Amino acid sequence: MTELESLREQLKAFAAARDWDQFHSPKNLAMALSVEAGELLETFQWLSEEQSRRLPAEVLAAASDEVADVLLYLIRLCDQMGIDPIVAANRKLVANEAKYPVDKARGNSKKYTEL
Amino acid sequence: MTELESLREQLKAFAAARDWDQFHSPKNLAMALSVEAGELLETFQWLSEEQSRRLPAEVLAAASDEVADVLLYLIRLCDQMGIDPIVAANRKLVANEAKYPVDKARGNSKKYTEL
Amino acid sequence: MTELESLREQLKAFAAARDWDQFHSPKNLAMALSVEAGELLETFQWLSEEQSRRLPAEVLAAASDEVADVLLYLIRLCDQMGIDPIVAANRKLVANEAKYPVDKARGNSKKYTEL
Amino acid sequence: MTELESLREQLKAFAAARDWDQFHSPKNLAMALSVEAGELLETFQWLSEEQSRRLPAEVLAAASDEVADVLLYLIRLCDQMGIDPIVAANRKLVANEAKYPVDKARGNSKKYTEL
Repeated sequence: MTELESLREQLKAFAAARDWDQFHSPKNLAMALSVEAGELLETFQWLSEEQSRRLPAEVLAAASDEVADVLLYLIRLCDQMGIDPIVAANRKLVANEAKYPVDKARGNSKKYTEL
Repeated sequence: MTELESLREQLKAFAAARDWDQFHSPKNLAMALSVEAGELLETFQWLSEEQSRRLPAEVLAAASDEVADVLLYLIRLCDQMGIDPIVAANRKLVANEAKYPVDKARGNSKKYTEL
Repeated sequence: MTELESLREQLKAFAAARDWDQFHSPKNLAMALSVEAGELLETFQWLSEEQSRRLPAEVLAAASDEVADVLLYLIRLCDQMGIDPIVAANRKLVANEAKYPVDKARGNSKKYTEL
Repeated sequence: MTELESLREQLKAFAAARDWDQFHSPKNLAMALSVEAGELLETFQWLSEEQSRRLPAEVLAAASDEVADVLLYLIRLCDQMGIDPIVAANRKLVANEAKYPVDKARGNSKKYTEL
């Protein structure tokens, strides 16, 4: 069992023990994931980009906690939707290679539709 | 190398080949992650919870794509911050066991601060 | 002066007195707005739609506070970008009339691109 | 009737004509608002703060459109929750004066809990 699968199984058991499947619809889990993404964002909202590259230890620890929340809801959402996040991510990486050819995208932050 | 580490290395090479490290500050990556979380949310905004549990194939495929984007930015963000998302998630799971004791949290969606 | 203009001027004075213009770039204000939208979302994440239509007084008060934060950052962002939110909203309403003709959109939550 | 009240009434009529009240629960409207906040954020994700202060005309126009969407959903949400956004915003401004005293907050982006 991979690390992600282990987390998935622990989350499933966690929810089952608390009878939380009733709350864990994909709709609600996508909301929870977005809420946590917002909390992660809060860490950075008044920092410069440079500051965000050199976070003090306590800010880094707080950001790690929010990253963990995002990942846990993502895993739980995938489980409830019956999709494998690793497969989806690998498929997307291949698509991105085609969307962002090196020669056009180098040093350029434009969206692929504008390259 | 685990699947997540493989994705991390591919993303690192992808960014390096395009000279994108200049754009990939933790601040910007947290924004990008939040944008993708919003796109994932869009899939579900007008669906009932019941509908979100039984997605038509094309909606499920679109949601998978957004899930992949969230995961890829999460991995890239962790790489740029120097944190291990699996370690962070496992630490959080342990904390959640303490915050949400089974006897208090069963069938209850309240936040731990209100249990 | 309209109510929105009054809020705009108070926010401008508030920021000036604290020397906060340096932090109030449109980029940062859009992040702050998104963070507050996430906090508003948190209010509803585990509620059913029916429950969200009949909020207990204390939940309604908390949601009002988050709504206020979103509105304040929106006004401040518009001021920093030099745009008038009322003009923009009226323009969008006209566009939406064309995108969602009554006969096609009635009782239908599909996006205009799929009508 | 103020400009906001006029927008509120137009949105109410717009939704009624399309039989959309069934979709416009506070839960769903808070999701839609968050989705639009994410689209607004997308405008800025790869820009520097300096660039975000001097947007090209077409980017500014796109950002105005997203601002309009956020405002329209905010007004609609307030209508469905029975709250007045101007009253809520004014109340919050008073609270912020107390939370961020000028002498402590000047030139400082820390959250009030850390001042």
